[in-house]
Amino acid sequence: MLPKGFYSLGKNIGIKDTTKDFAVIYSNIPCHSAAVFTLNNFPGAPIIVGKEHIKNGILQAIVINSKNSNVATGEEGVKNALEICKAVANSLKINFEDVLPSSTGVIGVPLPIDKILNACKTIKSELKEGNLEEVAEAILTTDKKKKISYKVINQNGKTGVIYGIAKGAGMIEPNMATMLCYILTDINIKTSDLKSILKSAVDKSFNCLTIDSDTSTSDTVVVMSNGTSIELEEPEFEEYLTEICIDLTKQIAMDAEGATKLIELKVSGATNLVQAKKIGKSILNSPLVKTAIYGGDPNWGRFIMAIGKVFDEKIPFENISLKLNGLEIKNADQSTKHKMSNYLKENSKIFLDVNLGMGEFSSIFWGCDLTEEYIKENAYYTT
Amino acid sequence: MLPKGFYSLGKNIGIKDTTKDFAVIYSNIPCHSAAVFTLNNFPGAPIIVGKEHIKNGILQAIVINSKNSNVATGEEGVKNALEICKAVANSLKINFEDVLPSSTGVIGVPLPIDKILNACKTIKSELKEGNLEEVAEAILTTDKKKKISYKVINQNGKTGVIYGIAKGAGMIEPNMATMLCYILTDINIKTSDLKSILKSAVDKSFNCLTIDSDTSTSDTVVVMSNGTSIELEEPEFEEYLTEICIDLTKQIAMDAEGATKLIELKVSGATNLVQAKKIGKSILNSPLVKTAIYGGDPNWGRFIMAIGKVFDEKIPFENISLKLNGLEIKNADQSTKHKMSNYLKENSKIFLDVNLGMGEFSSIFWGCDLTEEYIKENAYYTT
Repeated sequence: MLPKGFYSLGKNIGIKDTTKDFAVIYSNIPCHSAAVFTLNNFPGAPIIVGKEHIKNGILQAIVINSKNSNVATGEEGVKNALEICKAVANSLKINFEDVLPSSTGVIGVPLPIDKILNACKTIKSELKEGNLEEVAEAILTTDKKKKISYKVINQNGKTGVIYGIAKGAGMIEPNMATMLCYILTDINIKTSDLKSILKSAVDKSFNCLTIDSDTSTSDTVVVMSNGTSIELEEPEFEEYLTEICIDLTKQIAMDAEGATKLIELKVSGATNLVQAKKIGKSILNSPLVKTAIYGGDPNWGRFIMAIGKVFDEKIPFENISLKLNGLEIKNADQSTKHKMSNYLKENSKIFLDVNLGMGEFSSIFWGCDLTEEYIKENAYYTT
Repeated sequence: MLPKGFYSLGKNIGIKDTTKDFAVIYSNIPCHSAAVFTLNNFPGAPIIVGKEHIKNGILQAIVINSKNSNVATGEEGVKNALEICKAVANSLKINFEDVLPSSTGVIGVPLPIDKILNACKTIKSELKEGNLEEVAEAILTTDKKKKISYKVINQNGKTGVIYGIAKGAGMIEPNMATMLCYILTDINIKTSDLKSILKSAVDKSFNCLTIDSDTSTSDTVVVMSNGTSIELEEPEFEEYLTEICIDLTKQIAMDAEGATKLIELKVSGATNLVQAKKIGKSILNSPLVKTAIYGGDPNWGRFIMAIGKVFDEKIPFENISLKLNGLEIKNADQSTKHKMSNYLKENSKIFLDVNLGMGEFSSIFWGCDLTEEYIKENAYYTT
């Protein structure tokens, strides 16, 4: 089921190869919108332009290309992103400042701007109602699977839909946002601060994800609401939005470059959320933890090492509990190691619980294992 | 050439397999000594004992086992490390507090203490003068090569020797020290603070190294001086010591788990050394930089991403210069990319210069590429 009032297209325009690489999402009325972007100090040109265009909280279209991120392309890159918005606006007869540009792919290569501007000319006639799966496909780079999550809410015989699309498989340790994620809804959200709601949802989902510790220069999460279906109070919408963001976060972790296992890590017993996050990220970014989980190696000492290398958070060793799917693995004997190894080898979703025994705070983080395939994919990405 | 007055042995005592796993270094007189240890919050039992034994600045022997790190082994682990020191002292008729214990290998497995105590009984009769290559072999775990660096200093017809031995191939982002490193000298160093000299040398060498961002729980660097040959002033000794530490650092990076390339990164134009280190570590720890260097992928944007993800150090993009062996690669065109790719593919030592254009500070860092072999070695380490 799709949110009402959204039209889209996804197609190939030959940016790199013959797979889909260009997409447009259009709402037939201007949308109440919010976005969060990467904290990387060298954000892409589309992000520089997008930050301006989202300022008034209104968007009516998103234009996306994959296979080229338009990052580190200087003033020419910014000019190109703006021209694309204008071309889209021109075709759709809307305000160019209500268009958000997005690009993902290789860094530091000028956009094939003529191909893109050319494709913009025919947007109006090629848009189809809904059709968002095509967009989900067109935004992929090294991803193997489309990432879609949606929620249908029934209210007095009427229905509202929140529909999220994401991409991302590497260069992922989002900070305030993830690779690319578009969330469309026809629900009228009773809020004066959609951005806070989005930030809060992102903090509990994408910002708790790490694939390889590398924060992308293109991270973007956008939410667009046309308000044409049911009306929801802030807390309720935030709850649904968070669910969708978490679902997309897990889909990204599962489809991470080379990954064979999704790791869901709960850090509890922390003195505060900052402590939980430092420990959580240290564990999920540790190549030695990630390879042990990949190989089914019952090497629990590596978890201890990864907790201990957060020098400024001193946790007494005795306090710590390490559980793998409920099984205590700290000081594991041979029989426990055997169970641990079997669990790691037989499952593609790994549940890890780390209790620090320090306080009352807890948080959940997501990551994946590290495999030979990650190396292969990234050793030869541009070539 | 070996430093005078040191005796040693290295042999197999069956801790894990049939390769050498036990070593002792002995000086026939007590040595002026200093050591630095890991900052990991869960240091191994030998480190807990070693910190006590080094307090008075005197050591006469070091006892080392590989294949088991005696880390996360609780009170029993500490008791075992102490008993080993006592058994060594007993055989050598020296003070047990002048013995430094060291262990390296898997975390969280109790030491086979009987095998070790048994081996200690015959130390005295098995020691050979010099013989340090055997020690260099016995301390290895996943290392492929022995790591030795020495310096002979001539002074008025007399000679002094500084001789360093190290091990380490993974779980390496040293902080105040590296895996294991023993530096022996017969030189009389005219200093009241050998530890400061060692710290300074370590800060310019091992602390500028990262293999996989994982700080070991066993990091130890020890220097022992018996003062029986020539006498050197503090600055001169420090210079030689630093040279040896840098040489061993490079040997560790070259022999890193799965590595095919040593990366020497100079970060210059920094506002201070902290900034240089943050940027240097971010580049050398980035899986995407490491895999690009492995694959010879001319993906210069990944260097930019890795500089930009140090959120709290904002460097203007225009300021930055990126040079690969002298070739400017920022905004590389096709011809430059071609040269870049060839350079990466044809060389096993990669020289990278990053100038931040911010200030006058510079520092050199070492790292290595990330390959399928790293994954293979670490997915199945304990099994």
